[in-house]
Amino acid sequence: MKFVIIGGDAAGMSAASRAKRRSPGMEVIVIEKTDDVSYSACGLPYNIADPEREIDDLIVRRPDEFRAKQKIDLYNGYEALEIDRNRKQVKGITSKGSEFSFSFDRLLIATGASAVKPDIEGIDSPGVFMLRNLEHGRAIKRHLAQNKVKKAVIIGMGYIALEMCEALYTHGIEVSMIKPGKTFLPWMDPELAGVVLAEVKKHDIRLYPGFKPERITDSGGILEVQAKDLILSGEIVIAATGVRPNSGLAKKAGLELGPNDAISVNKRLETSDPAIYAAGDCGDAYHVVTGKKVWIPLALRANRAGWAVADNVCGNFVELEGVCGTAVFKVFDLQVARTGLTAREASEAGFTPASVTVQTRSKAHAHPGSTPIYVHMVGDTKTGRLLGVQMVGKEGVAHRINAPACALHAGMTVKQYSQLDLAYAPPFSPVWDPTLVAANQLLKKL
Amino acid sequence: MKFVIIGGDAAGMSAASRAKRRSPGMEVIVIEKTDDVSYSACGLPYNIADPEREIDDLIVRRPDEFRAKQKIDLYNGYEALEIDRNRKQVKGITSKGSEFSFSFDRLLIATGASAVKPDIEGIDSPGVFMLRNLEHGRAIKRHLAQNKVKKAVIIGMGYIALEMCEALYTHGIEVSMIKPGKTFLPWMDPELAGVVLAEVKKHDIRLYPGFKPERITDSGGILEVQAKDLILSGEIVIAATGVRPNSGLAKKAGLELGPNDAISVNKRLETSDPAIYAAGDCGDAYHVVTGKKVWIPLALRANRAGWAVADNVCGNFVELEGVCGTAVFKVFDLQVARTGLTAREASEAGFTPASVTVQTRSKAHAHPGSTPIYVHMVGDTKTGRLLGVQMVGKEGVAHRINAPACALHAGMTVKQYSQLDLAYAPPFSPVWDPTLVAANQLLKKL
Repeated sequence: MKFVIIGGDAAGMSAASRAKRRSPGMEVIVIEKTDDVSYSACGLPYNIADPEREIDDLIVRRPDEFRAKQKIDLYNGYEALEIDRNRKQVKGITSKGSEFSFSFDRLLIATGASAVKPDIEGIDSPGVFMLRNLEHGRAIKRHLAQNKVKKAVIIGMGYIALEMCEALYTHGIEVSMIKPGKTFLPWMDPELAGVVLAEVKKHDIRLYPGFKPERITDSGGILEVQAKDLILSGEIVIAATGVRPNSGLAKKAGLELGPNDAISVNKRLETSDPAIYAAGDCGDAYHVVTGKKVWIPLALRANRAGWAVADNVCGNFVELEGVCGTAVFKVFDLQVARTGLTAREASEAGFTPASVTVQTRSKAHAHPGSTPIYVHMVGDTKTGRLLGVQMVGKEGVAHRINAPACALHAGMTVKQYSQLDLAYAPPFSPVWDPTLVAANQLLKKL
Repeated sequence: MKFVIIGGDAAGMSAASRAKRRSPGMEVIVIEKTDDVSYSACGLPYNIADPEREIDDLIVRRPDEFRAKQKIDLYNGYEALEIDRNRKQVKGITSKGSEFSFSFDRLLIATGASAVKPDIEGIDSPGVFMLRNLEHGRAIKRHLAQNKVKKAVIIGMGYIALEMCEALYTHGIEVSMIKPGKTFLPWMDPELAGVVLAEVKKHDIRLYPGFKPERITDSGGILEVQAKDLILSGEIVIAATGVRPNSGLAKKAGLELGPNDAISVNKRLETSDPAIYAAGDCGDAYHVVTGKKVWIPLALRANRAGWAVADNVCGNFVELEGVCGTAVFKVFDLQVARTGLTAREASEAGFTPASVTVQTRSKAHAHPGSTPIYVHMVGDTKTGRLLGVQMVGKEGVAHRINAPACALHAGMTVKQYSQLDLAYAPPFSPVWDPTLVAANQLLKKL
């Protein structure tokens, strides 16, 4: 059995390592375009925030370790360009310009996702960066080290944009953020989004929602981001306007694509060609609440899907149930988390949602140091089912979202959630956990 | 309808308030032995730790508020002594020595639990305290304020003993702890218990497990706790050796008792007499994992049961599913949490448990400030079901226990748990949540 993997990050290397553990005799070949494998891309903003740390700190395991210790045939600098499904071959070109081809019995496409390059004149100017892989991180750190960066412009206001905002703020840089849409965190309940917005503004970040960047010009190292009626300038520009799945290879090979043009896979992670799997940010998944396909590129799913592919390739068949879009990020002193559907997504999926937003606190009555926690909860008026939760607070949010996530997997009703025996101690929670308060309130609307 | 409630803390006042909200015309009478109602008993150790704060800060709502705003007939200083089930009357005596009696249509017994007074000679000496209600807290604070307390002896090493240990340590007091049993936190996985033990010892607390206190003597304000081959001395002694349900009234009235002599109730909180309910620390509950009765006196259940009784009395019938014993407490810089069954409890309940203990970390690879998190997970080898989780760590434990708690309510298998889409971001978690790492490891044993 010859198992070839295109892409050497989370999904690809998880699959390669697990296949070798399960079937040490199997020939496992990994083709990776860059020199990096197995790193924590999510850690990039935090690493960039700290001049003392090297980008290479984010590397979990180096190529040589995979080769020497795990006997994985790992080819760095190898870019796959074509999948020949009839001949079961992957063809491509090395960074040195040589052509290569590998035949496979089973193939895994784990090509990840790429940062979307916004369609703005001058986006390729020196000093304009995107953020997705270690090379991007290295380039940004080099730019910060070599230039006196006093002001920065970030295009985008999503979670990576906000993490980068904080990273640059940590350097003492004055940050402006701009995006075409008028609504800050449009997927979020307006009250919660307002809390996050206030936190950002408290740190003197200048926000310009509703302005579409049209041009970036460079005059002697000062970059100007120009929109109608607005010019923002700085010594660095970061474009963080979303990601898209790297599904070009799969599309060219005639494999089916799903939402957002991610590669369509079944619960076994098989593409429309059962000899070919896809895993990680390039592939889609089932949503456990709607039962429909979604594309939610997150790290845990990538690692889990890599393992599942290896298990299936090794004959130990497993299926992955799906995702519910649980995510958390940090915005200065705030933790911001979500799981499941927003009210709007719920409507679009055919539910008849009701929702509540409650403000409670992080500690018990009279316990010092308590801070507000905001919970937004969505349920279905027809079935009583819990559909989604959003949460914002200074503490106790990041892990608190996991109980609602579990409840979504279990298909619980809001009433069942309201009966959960959750943890309480004065330093950590009110007697009624904030999510229980929300559930009790939401029950009145269902 | 005349609704009489014996006991004015969490369960009793929750029931009274909710009954008045649901049925404003209902006559609601609360009989409370002490002068305090509706306070946070769990906050006592933290309040005692802080000389600047008054015990009364722990009062959530004062008697007069219940009387004036909620029109509840609240009688403080009224001790119930007898329930006449035939005549539907509660009889008792006031703090001033007068007899009283109230007739009822529905009665709620919400008498709570009491600290167990250990059978030690001299336990009633001045300077020896137990900790259960506000009066105990006031007495301890008064003693600390009026005496130069340099050394303290705590009898017991359970969670209240440990919270009091930290409270006294905060005052700069040298603390010794003693108990007859040889095992520190005997319900806990030994590896996790060892982590907690190390944390306690790091703060120079002197621990004497395996010594049975036999006598307490007082010579001029210096108390000596004497055991075989050991004498510990201090200006204060705290006895924290567990609690027992206040079920004497119910027993005397011929009501059925359950585990630990708690008052036996069904899911509607009805005792063996359907006109009489019990709620809070005096009553038992169903365990959602075993389906059997247990006595786990915790605040959330008390509040929830109070509400449920009010709903049932008001004709809006509800049933409570049960508890899974989710609990968390703080030991210096550690968070210690559990939910569900220990391996031993699982065996006793007829399961065939397997368990694992894993050490992971609180943040992502290479993220600064990461600390260890220890997870112990128990599953059933016959059914694959998740049975219980214990966790210890400096951060990210208190709320992380809630996802396993939710999974226990849902009756999930370890495999189902291992597929949960839990939150990840570098400052808050590794990609694989510590509980997922434990589940993946435990799966190998099931």
